[in-house]
Amino acid sequence: MEEYHILNKINSIEDFKKIDKKDYPALADELRSFLVSAVSEHGGHLASNLGAVELVIALHHVFSTPKDKIVFDVGHQSYVHKILTGRREAFKTLRTKGGLGGFPKRRESEHDSFDTGHSSTSISAALGMLRAKKLLGEEGSVVAVIGDGAMTGGMSFEALNDAGQSKLPLLVILNDNEMSISGNVGALSNYFSKVRTSKRYLLFKRNIENFLSSIPKIGRPLANWVYRLKNRIKYFLLPKNIWFEAMGFTYLGPIDGHDTEALIAVLKQASAFKWPALVHVVSKKGKGYMPAQLNPERFHGIGPFDKETGAEKSKKARSNSAVFGDALVRLAENDNRIAAITAAMSNGTGLSAFEHRFPERFFDVGIAEQHAVTMAAGMAAGGLRPVVAIYSTFMQRAYDQALHDVCLQSLPVLFALDRAGLVGEDGETHQGVYDMAYMLTMPNIAIAVPTTQCELEKMIELLLSIDMPAAIRYPRGALPIGDPHKQIEFGKWDVINPISDVVVIASGRVAENAKNACEGLNVGLVNALFIRPFDEAVMAEINKKARCVITVEDGIRTLGMGAYLSSHFKENIKLINLGVTEKIVEHATVAQQDEQCSISACQIRKVVEENL
Amino acid sequence: MEEYHILNKINSIEDFKKIDKKDYPALADELRSFLVSAVSEHGGHLASNLGAVELVIALHHVFSTPKDKIVFDVGHQSYVHKILTGRREAFKTLRTKGGLGGFPKRRESEHDSFDTGHSSTSISAALGMLRAKKLLGEEGSVVAVIGDGAMTGGMSFEALNDAGQSKLPLLVILNDNEMSISGNVGALSNYFSKVRTSKRYLLFKRNIENFLSSIPKIGRPLANWVYRLKNRIKYFLLPKNIWFEAMGFTYLGPIDGHDTEALIAVLKQASAFKWPALVHVVSKKGKGYMPAQLNPERFHGIGPFDKETGAEKSKKARSNSAVFGDALVRLAENDNRIAAITAAMSNGTGLSAFEHRFPERFFDVGIAEQHAVTMAAGMAAGGLRPVVAIYSTFMQRAYDQALHDVCLQSLPVLFALDRAGLVGEDGETHQGVYDMAYMLTMPNIAIAVPTTQCELEKMIELLLSIDMPAAIRYPRGALPIGDPHKQIEFGKWDVINPISDVVVIASGRVAENAKNACEGLNVGLVNALFIRPFDEAVMAEINKKARCVITVEDGIRTLGMGAYLSSHFKENIKLINLGVTEKIVEHATVAQQDEQCSISACQIRKVVEENL
Repeated sequence: MEEYHILNKINSIEDFKKIDKKDYPALADELRSFLVSAVSEHGGHLASNLGAVELVIALHHVFSTPKDKIVFDVGHQSYVHKILTGRREAFKTLRTKGGLGGFPKRRESEHDSFDTGHSSTSISAALGMLRAKKLLGEEGSVVAVIGDGAMTGGMSFEALNDAGQSKLPLLVILNDNEMSISGNVGALSNYFSKVRTSKRYLLFKRNIENFLSSIPKIGRPLANWVYRLKNRIKYFLLPKNIWFEAMGFTYLGPIDGHDTEALIAVLKQASAFKWPALVHVVSKKGKGYMPAQLNPERFHGIGPFDKETGAEKSKKARSNSAVFGDALVRLAENDNRIAAITAAMSNGTGLSAFEHRFPERFFDVGIAEQHAVTMAAGMAAGGLRPVVAIYSTFMQRAYDQALHDVCLQSLPVLFALDRAGLVGEDGETHQGVYDMAYMLTMPNIAIAVPTTQCELEKMIELLLSIDMPAAIRYPRGALPIGDPHKQIEFGKWDVINPISDVVVIASGRVAENAKNACEGLNVGLVNALFIRPFDEAVMAEINKKARCVITVEDGIRTLGMGAYLSSHFKENIKLINLGVTEKIVEHATVAQQDEQCSISACQIRKVVEENL
Repeated sequence: MEEYHILNKINSIEDFKKIDKKDYPALADELRSFLVSAVSEHGGHLASNLGAVELVIALHHVFSTPKDKIVFDVGHQSYVHKILTGRREAFKTLRTKGGLGGFPKRRESEHDSFDTGHSSTSISAALGMLRAKKLLGEEGSVVAVIGDGAMTGGMSFEALNDAGQSKLPLLVILNDNEMSISGNVGALSNYFSKVRTSKRYLLFKRNIENFLSSIPKIGRPLANWVYRLKNRIKYFLLPKNIWFEAMGFTYLGPIDGHDTEALIAVLKQASAFKWPALVHVVSKKGKGYMPAQLNPERFHGIGPFDKETGAEKSKKARSNSAVFGDALVRLAENDNRIAAITAAMSNGTGLSAFEHRFPERFFDVGIAEQHAVTMAAGMAAGGLRPVVAIYSTFMQRAYDQALHDVCLQSLPVLFALDRAGLVGEDGETHQGVYDMAYMLTMPNIAIAVPTTQCELEKMIELLLSIDMPAAIRYPRGALPIGDPHKQIEFGKWDVINPISDVVVIASGRVAENAKNACEGLNVGLVNALFIRPFDEAVMAEINKKARCVITVEDGIRTLGMGAYLSSHFKENIKLINLGVTEKIVEHATVAQQDEQCSISACQIRKVVEENL
């Protein structure tokens, strides 16, 4: 058990405010140790939080929440904020049912000013809050903390453009990891790195400073003097970041993100401005924990792991993402029209193998789902067969592009929607439960839902062989492997138990729940492998023989597969749709979430039995 | 009847290529006259097309479609392109059923490389096409033509960021109107205008040039020499547009958008680059037609008008947009928390009056729907009551923001969805038929659908008085005025004819069709003023008395109101959903589109009679 001498005293933000500044470095060490311990037990987002320890300390030193507002973009950098604002004890419940969420939550604390989870929302939200303060005559600063990855999202640009014009004193902290989730991309990133090179100048100065600080007694004041001098020199010597200046922001930086004192100084300076300012902080993802520092991508979001070695505890089955990625590599060997596109999620979506095998056909566009989809539409119009691999929840960002640019033109783009359905510990902002509902609104698009990894693999091949838009959705983790000899036909369902008086139509991961629910009962069971087109032959048989149909899905119940199919059933059939309720499904295990939505095997069985 | 000596010879792009360069100015004049004539008859987008005449001539002079690809962002600048690529004759069918569409369409011509309609997609699509060309080893350039308004959309930034890094020879033409649809906004726009001021230098040079050209015989060669010299001088004298250079683009400009010769020269120069380039063209919206030049906003999209005076022919009824805008002004007089937000559509959404009355509470964020919605969420979190007025079709851009930032947090943002339902002549890219389907997927949000302007007005007041997210959808044009004394209750339906054996539940504009359909028949008729929450009392009565329910809506049939309500009807009720089919609904009149979707009064009546 570690000893947290300073941290243990912090049970509220008021406690933190009592800590002496000179103890901040020790507090930072304790926080890192605390973070590694806690996340090693339950899993969570580690690397970004380790990289933001000093920044969050400095923010809470300079600003006073809840009067001042801090919006953490995405929320991957909010753990230290949670710990310092009265949630240290609760932190051991992180990402568990009824416990602390992994992202900022307004209902969790008055210090969380805005719920985040998806990328690139912070500047917009912060600007809205600042405008509210101004119109309502309220005091206080508003700060958006955003990573360099999130800055590649178009929303950030839209917000900068508006904020720069507003002339309001919005403070944006660009926390530049020199890497977002899986290596940063884009022209702007190249440009940032040019600006960063000037950091060498700062580091040189820092070394002098450290040397001066180490001289006892006179050291610290002298170092402070050097610091002030450095700041003054910097404004003459460093190339201004003209990109941000063009957007109407006063640019300050780059600042060493692990130098609390420097951070405090620049935040104080920036908070005194009466106009928009951007502080460019350069930090190291995974800072202070060697395994994370060496492999920040793996430690971005991670399950429970061994603290000493960094090795993940549970040996995982081969993920659906890997099955998808490997299938794509195999298909691309024989079809040079196949291209793969990711929005900063090469690893998460299983595309790393493709990236290495076909670098010229692999495109990471940054956290830019909108562009990813329309760029794919352009590729398809140009004769390629692009595959856009995106998490179901992030695909929401490209709803219009999928509808307007892909489906209306009926261009052959394949959407691989990973993390579809209930996602477990990431909670409500990351639930992939809307995809069927929103994809089914679009014209011309086929929608396939595998229930095994073998089906997933064969569906990818099938969907790339047809000349139309298509989406395939599959859950986080690993579906059962399934039967490698089973054939998949376009638009055909799988009749597992023959159609009878009561029929269960299930889709995706929860088809397994449905199967278990029907065990030993005399009910028809259908695996709806395609939602559109659906199987008209099986549907006709159901309409002929069934009295009651129960649909089961891990998408929203009111407007998903069940609702979509409802108008095709004969009027005298009793129709029961099971699926995710309209009530928000918070963080918990997937099994707990199934329970909450009444789609566990037991719960399905109960409904079946009631209708037998 | 005008005489089009040059234009009449152009029946294909090959014919255009035969025109002598010296005739381009005369051709430009003829094109303008042709555009004004044609649009004055059928209506359409005039001002942007008038502003792009020389640019399109220069593009087709330098590039050869379909081998080269030109992507017109939004498509408001594509009329001249249509005329020059073999569609001059067909142009008189513009925006009519079965005729030419008002936007580029791949199925209309091989010269239309990509369908557009929504803003800011062109750079993404063009980059996709260029990548396809590279991977497939095909020749040809790819050019994106984008207005300064569309450049404020986040997608454009995402695409620039990717393209700049790609190092591919993508050519972006920024056609800078110094004004998008309703005046340009944003910090970047301020920055552009700084760059534009350097244009004065060019104009000065242009005057010398004109003078030299006017000298007979030696004039033209001398002018050419001056032009070349000017170009050389420019690169030393003009401030580079560092913003674009930072994004990895070589910047050329600003160029006079009405100087065909200068445009041809710069396009030739840029097309020879082997890397990304951006040509900044400065043009005048409405150029050459005084009424449009004086009031480009009114002539952006316009109905039939008198060519001589510019006066619109049909005296329109007071629009729903105006009713909304006036209601909001009235409510804001007594509630200083009300703020209004538009994405570059102040006039179109009826917010002009609000803008003038409460400039400090009015926010035009540019063509940036994503930011508009999340900024509103920030405002709501900060205690304001923001109203986001957006066309139903453009709201698709902010699906994720409405779901993730507004609805999951249950923040009191009111969405005013204008142009909901079938929109008529703008066609499939602008149909507002998806909003009910996609808004109903979101948690916590109330959805109201008025059928009269009085209901619209009262609903706005009602929805601003409840503390939750809400959306109100209303069609283009004018709903019936309705009864000013009628009261609206939250979640209550309007029972027009008493519930009986057969019941029609109608929503929105088409409730009028349903009413006409039921005339004289013994059927129940319900006006579903709220889709969520729906009226449980009326629903219970229907479940008690009805044998058959027919729902009627102008949203998509499969996943709209009818599907949403379906699971709440008793199992033995026969349910028939009428609404917009999955088949794409192209440009035509709204009445024709109703027919196409089988929701005209006659068609509804037929279904009712069949079920009596």
